[in-house]
Amino acid sequence: MTIHTKPEPEKPAFAVTTGPLAGSRKVHDSGRRFPDLRVPGRAIEVEGEPVVRVYDPSGPYTDATATIDISAGLPRHRGPWVRARGDVEEVDATVIPPLGQGGAVPPFPIKHRPLRGKPGRTPTQLAYARAGIITPEMEYVAIRENLGRTEAAKARDGEDFGAAIPDLVTPEFVRDEVARGRAIIPANINHAELEPAIIGRNFLTKINANIGNSAVLSSVADEVDKLVWAIRWGADTVMDLSTGRDIHNIREWIVRNSPVPIGTVPLYQALEKVGGVAEDLTWEIYRDTLIEQCEQGVDYFTVHAGVRLAYIPLTANRVTGIVSRGGSIMAKWCLAHHTESFLYTRFRDICEILAAYDVAFSLGDGLRPGSIADANDRAQFAELETLGELTKIAWEHGVQVMIEGPGHVPMHKIKVNVEKQLQLCGEAPFYTLGPLVTDIAPGYDHITSAIGAAMIGWFGTAMLCYVTPKEHLGLPDRNDVKTGVITYKIAAHAADLAKGHPGAQAQDDAISRARFEFRWHDQFNLALDTDTARSFHDETLPKEAHKTAHFCSMCGPKFCSMKISQEIRASAAAQPSDAVAAGMAEMSEKFKALGSQVYVEIDEVAAAGKRP
Amino acid sequence: MTIHTKPEPEKPAFAVTTGPLAGSRKVHDSGRRFPDLRVPGRAIEVEGEPVVRVYDPSGPYTDATATIDISAGLPRHRGPWVRARGDVEEVDATVIPPLGQGGAVPPFPIKHRPLRGKPGRTPTQLAYARAGIITPEMEYVAIRENLGRTEAAKARDGEDFGAAIPDLVTPEFVRDEVARGRAIIPANINHAELEPAIIGRNFLTKINANIGNSAVLSSVADEVDKLVWAIRWGADTVMDLSTGRDIHNIREWIVRNSPVPIGTVPLYQALEKVGGVAEDLTWEIYRDTLIEQCEQGVDYFTVHAGVRLAYIPLTANRVTGIVSRGGSIMAKWCLAHHTESFLYTRFRDICEILAAYDVAFSLGDGLRPGSIADANDRAQFAELETLGELTKIAWEHGVQVMIEGPGHVPMHKIKVNVEKQLQLCGEAPFYTLGPLVTDIAPGYDHITSAIGAAMIGWFGTAMLCYVTPKEHLGLPDRNDVKTGVITYKIAAHAADLAKGHPGAQAQDDAISRARFEFRWHDQFNLALDTDTARSFHDETLPKEAHKTAHFCSMCGPKFCSMKISQEIRASAAAQPSDAVAAGMAEMSEKFKALGSQVYVEIDEVAAAGKRP
Repeated sequence: MTIHTKPEPEKPAFAVTTGPLAGSRKVHDSGRRFPDLRVPGRAIEVEGEPVVRVYDPSGPYTDATATIDISAGLPRHRGPWVRARGDVEEVDATVIPPLGQGGAVPPFPIKHRPLRGKPGRTPTQLAYARAGIITPEMEYVAIRENLGRTEAAKARDGEDFGAAIPDLVTPEFVRDEVARGRAIIPANINHAELEPAIIGRNFLTKINANIGNSAVLSSVADEVDKLVWAIRWGADTVMDLSTGRDIHNIREWIVRNSPVPIGTVPLYQALEKVGGVAEDLTWEIYRDTLIEQCEQGVDYFTVHAGVRLAYIPLTANRVTGIVSRGGSIMAKWCLAHHTESFLYTRFRDICEILAAYDVAFSLGDGLRPGSIADANDRAQFAELETLGELTKIAWEHGVQVMIEGPGHVPMHKIKVNVEKQLQLCGEAPFYTLGPLVTDIAPGYDHITSAIGAAMIGWFGTAMLCYVTPKEHLGLPDRNDVKTGVITYKIAAHAADLAKGHPGAQAQDDAISRARFEFRWHDQFNLALDTDTARSFHDETLPKEAHKTAHFCSMCGPKFCSMKISQEIRASAAAQPSDAVAAGMAEMSEKFKALGSQVYVEIDEVAAAGKRP
Repeated sequence: MTIHTKPEPEKPAFAVTTGPLAGSRKVHDSGRRFPDLRVPGRAIEVEGEPVVRVYDPSGPYTDATATIDISAGLPRHRGPWVRARGDVEEVDATVIPPLGQGGAVPPFPIKHRPLRGKPGRTPTQLAYARAGIITPEMEYVAIRENLGRTEAAKARDGEDFGAAIPDLVTPEFVRDEVARGRAIIPANINHAELEPAIIGRNFLTKINANIGNSAVLSSVADEVDKLVWAIRWGADTVMDLSTGRDIHNIREWIVRNSPVPIGTVPLYQALEKVGGVAEDLTWEIYRDTLIEQCEQGVDYFTVHAGVRLAYIPLTANRVTGIVSRGGSIMAKWCLAHHTESFLYTRFRDICEILAAYDVAFSLGDGLRPGSIADANDRAQFAELETLGELTKIAWEHGVQVMIEGPGHVPMHKIKVNVEKQLQLCGEAPFYTLGPLVTDIAPGYDHITSAIGAAMIGWFGTAMLCYVTPKEHLGLPDRNDVKTGVITYKIAAHAADLAKGHPGAQAQDDAISRARFEFRWHDQFNLALDTDTARSFHDETLPKEAHKTAHFCSMCGPKFCSMKISQEIRASAAAQPSDAVAAGMAEMSEKFKALGSQVYVEIDEVAAAGKRP
């Protein structure tokens, strides 16, 4: 069935949210090396000013000209790029054992034969980058990162703690960063629907949203809509953490309809296959699950290979023990068998599988702290060192890697997490969950974690995994997903501003000019959440005439500082011979004569200006 | 009329919110020097553990034994302390000109004759502290800050950037900090209902909530209830920013019913008295307004005396000009008269008035930045130097001072704000609005600002002024007030944790233990917002049996990491001869043998533990 971009009076059964955000339109840039690339961006119209270009992970769903049919999936535009490299071949899909399927979700209607790297070939972005090859994916993300800019940024203002953010991202820079392992482009060769994105400290900070059911699905369209909803508000990647029996089919629907990289924790599905009994997990079941998901097109896997047997006793005196689901499952397995986990002992085998499909590692932090008391403890940092060791092994196999991080960490212990991670893991991208800076606010953990996320992003974390208001309490609903995404867009953007990312401040400046000039529509359209901004304003001043009013209900017309500020300037401009204007001009000149110092000594000001 | 602490079926017309928070009860500590002191605290009951004591600014409204009658006002327990010092006298109240009253709000039913310092006497906490006198207010706040602890804290963990936070707060320490101007106890001699609180870098970080109408009130009880609602959730002070014609009467209702310090911006009322025409303001009108509010019992005044004529042109090229209401009003006045403002030229006269009632200055930052683009600019820091100059003048007059700060500041520019403020203003307490770390999220500015607030609180800001979700868009309603308060409690508490404030982590540890042990009721009761935590949980698992369930709906029973962690421990404990338990114990010993290093070298671990 076809869902049109304008809402139908009767919503079809398989509907997802479509249509552009208010005041925005989809734009596309083409490549130089690869002229056929159509790199998406969002252009926000602004009255009397150039459009503001923002990063746009929302895919065709926000394209007014697109026709969406989730039963067909998104266009597989990336297929030719992958096949053109000549290093992949079609294979027969792995037969899925009935245990992995519950029957409540229909299979995706279209079957695509999976691709796999030819024997002896490594079809990964890392391998290409090392070989000096610039792929279409690399030029795509280079264009995407520049937000429509084609010239190097001029003024830069920020503290980047030793990052190497360029003034303009070039495909060569992308290739170099991927080759060094400092950035990854998660892009499974079987995810032909992907709009590639890059994750690394020298690029825009990315955010991930988790979706997925715990039990029985209401409908497959609901799950796909959660994906579409999350990317509509800015999620750069989505992890499908479903744990029910239908996860194979639901994942197929998600990947086929996802323009963003999809991550999973394959251990969850493996555990389903052994009826939830951790001790019964085997390498063979896990391996087959990896291959099954590689063939579907999952772009990155969380693998908790750093949970070593020796580290488990280090958690014995913790306040909250092991709080990672995967970490606790593997800890139980290790103790039951009293041996190292197969994730650790078979790590090179895992690398070989991932390399054949270009699935990236997200090396899981199974021993991350789950409380302020447990932050930065021995268990956590012991595992991090093992993750560093495993990073180098993955790189040997040409597999891209990012490293997962905490968790619950008070503010004064955040920075050392980034420093250790960069040092131990060879600057592989860091991907953190928050961190939450206090434990005492369940119901508000999107906020406790956004504080930590903004800071850790500033210090150098490449991707921030969102936390919703329901964290610790229950499953997020659609509103929670949106709140989590917007909150993490705030954290990521604040980090980009503080790092001095070129172009990041353009949106701030545009919305602030609109605010000063009472262009209310522009304020709403330039907001991260245009709908909420508009509805909050309209609660008290709903009329269209109020959209140009020189005040809002917060202070009212008489006490509006911006209105008074404007009057001051207007008065100065309109009466050039007036003492006021002359005084302003004179003072401005005197201050310039003082050398336009950022900090003006009071005595100099007094000497230059009129005394009281 | 009397409002009972249990909700009535029929809510009386003058009702405010009363009754304890779920799982909490009001407790009182008495003094040593002043045995009659009844210093309030909140005790949270925890299953099988000692109660957790938290700071409690909510006043008698949350005392199950209190009878609340807002027409009578709160008990005036502080009156005898003030009179016992022998340096004040009763005076006739200033006659309020009819211009200041709109007639929609009835006068408060009870008249109290105002007190004023006797000629030549300075009844301020600063003057007493300098004279070596420990007042009841000082012992009161000392007890209050210790959260029930009577012994010095043992382990301390934090980075306080040169603060001098004691292990246990003594009255002597309070006296010394007040004498040095590093802390203030805003406590107007006419605010006999006050439960004193201290604001300073070496004490718990405080938060302020702004209330007040812009136009016509629905009812006086609604405004009083906003106060009660804000302090119920944790506001330490409340600013009444009402700007209507009835502000004298509404303020009287608020002060008479407020256990927390009340702040105002007297300029707002003065402007009402001249019909909203800034140019018509005069020193005499302003002076009379100050006296009127001093007599009512307002505890601190925002005074924008740092907006000097010479600084106004510095704002000419800003993106958002002057965004402080008071700052823009005074800038307009200065330009219209082309002279320094009366707030600056009459500053010593203002000091003399404030000294006679012990009203504290909150020196306003009229030129604070209103956008990322304007942060840390010349106008902002020029004003800050003037505020430093004025601080010293106020101190000469025995008047307590805090300094207001920004505003909109990207993360990398926050720290220097605190450093400059401490240096320029002689360590007088800093009181900041956020700061917001990006401009692009109207509708979520409680979050954009909580990121900045947590950081600036950590760096040394003493009080954080909340921002609600409605900032920039409209007037906050009751829900917005609560969201703003809880969000700022998060920021303030995160700052206290990071500073290593003794005792701050007790609540985090208690809630984390409850989380690990699936004591759901304790988790809710220990949460900053117990009602929201409970309701989020109950959306999916409403039954009472679920309150002891070893999982929640977030991950379900099979994937609950805490459940698995518990099973691992239980298994180890139940089978002491088991290889698993032995292994755990053995490993623990080996790790201790390695010196219990925070960071364990991987080779040592491998050598000490069993190899795979």
